[in-house]
Amino acid sequence: MANPSILILAGDGIGPEVMAEVKKIIGWMGAKRGIHFDVSEDLVGGCAYDAHGTPLTDATMAKAQEVDAVLLGAVGGPKYDKLDFSVKPERGLLRLRKEMDLFSNLRPAQCFDALADFSSLKKDVVAGLDIVIVRELTSGVYFGEPRGIFTEGNERVGINTQRYTESEIARVARSAFELARKRNNKVCSMEKANVMESGILWRDVVQEIHDKEYPDVQLSHMYADAGAMQLCRWPKQFDVIVTDNLFGDLLSDMAAMLTGSLGMLPSASLGLPQANGRPKALYEPVHGSAPDIAGTGKANPIACILSFAMALRYSFDMGEEATRVEKAVEKVLADGVRTADLMGPEGGTPVSTSQMGDAVLAAL
Amino acid sequence: MANPSILILAGDGIGPEVMAEVKKIIGWMGAKRGIHFDVSEDLVGGCAYDAHGTPLTDATMAKAQEVDAVLLGAVGGPKYDKLDFSVKPERGLLRLRKEMDLFSNLRPAQCFDALADFSSLKKDVVAGLDIVIVRELTSGVYFGEPRGIFTEGNERVGINTQRYTESEIARVARSAFELARKRNNKVCSMEKANVMESGILWRDVVQEIHDKEYPDVQLSHMYADAGAMQLCRWPKQFDVIVTDNLFGDLLSDMAAMLTGSLGMLPSASLGLPQANGRPKALYEPVHGSAPDIAGTGKANPIACILSFAMALRYSFDMGEEATRVEKAVEKVLADGVRTADLMGPEGGTPVSTSQMGDAVLAAL
Ligand SMILES: CC(C)[C@H](C(=O)O)[C@@H](O)C(=O)O
Ligand SMILES: CC(C)[C@H](C(=O)O)[C@@H](O)C(=O)O
Repeated sequence: MANPSILILAGDGIGPEVMAEVKKIIGWMGAKRGIHFDVSEDLVGGCAYDAHGTPLTDATMAKAQEVDAVLLGAVGGPKYDKLDFSVKPERGLLRLRKEMDLFSNLRPAQCFDALADFSSLKKDVVAGLDIVIVRELTSGVYFGEPRGIFTEGNERVGINTQRYTESEIARVARSAFELARKRNNKVCSMEKANVMESGILWRDVVQEIHDKEYPDVQLSHMYADAGAMQLCRWPKQFDVIVTDNLFGDLLSDMAAMLTGSLGMLPSASLGLPQANGRPKALYEPVHGSAPDIAGTGKANPIACILSFAMALRYSFDMGEEATRVEKAVEKVLADGVRTADLMGPEGGTPVSTSQMGDAVLAAL
Repeated sequence: MANPSILILAGDGIGPEVMAEVKKIIGWMGAKRGIHFDVSEDLVGGCAYDAHGTPLTDATMAKAQEVDAVLLGAVGGPKYDKLDFSVKPERGLLRLRKEMDLFSNLRPAQCFDALADFSSLKKDVVAGLDIVIVRELTSGVYFGEPRGIFTEGNERVGINTQRYTESEIARVARSAFELARKRNNKVCSMEKANVMESGILWRDVVQEIHDKEYPDVQLSHMYADAGAMQLCRWPKQFDVIVTDNLFGDLLSDMAAMLTGSLGMLPSASLGLPQANGRPKALYEPVHGSAPDIAGTGKANPIACILSFAMALRYSFDMGEEATRVEKAVEKVLADGVRTADLMGPEGGTPVSTSQMGDAVLAAL
């Protein structure tokens, strides 16, 4: 059988630095565990624009469609702020999500014991927190038409369209219910059904799928504004949260920040199962490209390493290997190894990106 | 000269209970300070639907247009969850906002010293916090057309439209800059210009108004997801935040929750100045109708009382009277008077809604 294939798109900013540490682990898996991947690399985002005038070439897009999993670093940076909307770095990422049809974005917000003091929230509010936000990733206001800036009378008008079909809602709801069954069996769905008709449809369809297919899962509904509040007040009330693309963007970033572990959080974006049974999949850290620290060796590679662990679990059915990587990360943290972003007020000497990667390797 | 006029729309749930305490203060102002208001009362939300089959009658709408200020309690409740979208309690409130053209919604997120321990955030993160979110309130995805649930092929599709004109953005930007000049002269504008064209227009117009009319104010831009993060991480970095209707809904609720003072926070929704120089205006607490505690005497009336204080300041140019009310509230809190929502884990005996109102009156 052919080796499982991975396309690495390290992207911009700290992307290449954190991805370098993942490559070490991929190398280790081949050398020490006899698990080999066919790894190719390519460009996405600002670096692709610099090389080709587009944030994602058709050739790269085609490669992404063929591999078993894409690992992405991060895209964007101030250098590209003035670019036309159509070639901004983000368009590369959005094209990947859309054309690979990665509708289910799993964003765990997990508080690492060793870092509970690190949150701006009180320790008892976040210690032991372990929730997952399932964000719809291929529709909604990110992709709806009509969109653009138009002229009406003597002024400009900016338009975007929030648009959800029943089947788009149904499939992401299913993926949330499936996930909940493997966890604490609770799903909270968030929308603004009190204000938006698309929210009414969202609520209705989630409820229907629940009643017909997942009556054993505990389902609740919350308006997204109340959800944002409750995430700040007592996040442990949640298990799995399912929500749309835009609300998911805000709520998952917020939830990640709550844990105090932003540089630590991975994500998986999953599509439909392919002929070989594997879902189309892209894995990326929740953090951004952090242009302010790019090139300084300060970046924390753990989110990217844990994204690779998610790939092992969700794309390659290597749950044990995934756990091995996750346990190594936990050990390194428990040992007090810290990159600059994890330094508390008590100080200490931070390790570099590459030293952190080496520490994880050693723990493996 | 005629007395200034106020229309009270107490609404549903705890609305009437908290408004009763405001009426005591209005009474006190007449009796003790010789300041008289012409007060009328009417229905909005679920109670209006129960009485008239609509959450806001045309007659009430007309009255709201005529008075100097509307004081609103809260709308909504589970009893009305199954109502058709067009007659839901929220539609009454949204109609008021839209037809009165209340485009600038000021939502202070302030942490009261006596309550700093009360937040789920660490004390040093929130103590002394005093920021204002200026939320656009009459446009965006709340009102854009087309909207609704349609059938396409064999499935339903939910659609809403995010739509902003240049002049809509310009006027709310101005109101944020004006406010910043009276505070710490800093505005942060939030959108998703990396994903939405309406966000690009938002950013451009805010920048233009700044450069032309308010170059003295410090302006920054942030993506709304990063904004949500930063509000959790270090909210004191902000002074005035300006954002659209939907982001403002989530971000202001979240910011309110951060302070630990949700039952304490007022809001003002302001429109254009009228012939008499007063802006169209509606004042309401940030909290909702809290149907679970309605009728139990547990509700905290302070947000509603402070909303009345905002009315004194913004509608009636009675800044000193407003400060008097605010100081009375601070004194009551410093004295340890607490409604049930403000009880810490150390316990104690909470006062009722009406006892809290009386305490504020006594402090006046
Ligand atoms: C980079 C950007 C397009 C993206 C988004 O808005 O989805 C990011 O914020 C994310 O959450 O993955
Ligand atoms: C009640 C509801 C329509 C309203 C809104 O979404 O604007 C509320 O959440 C608010 O923030 O005032």
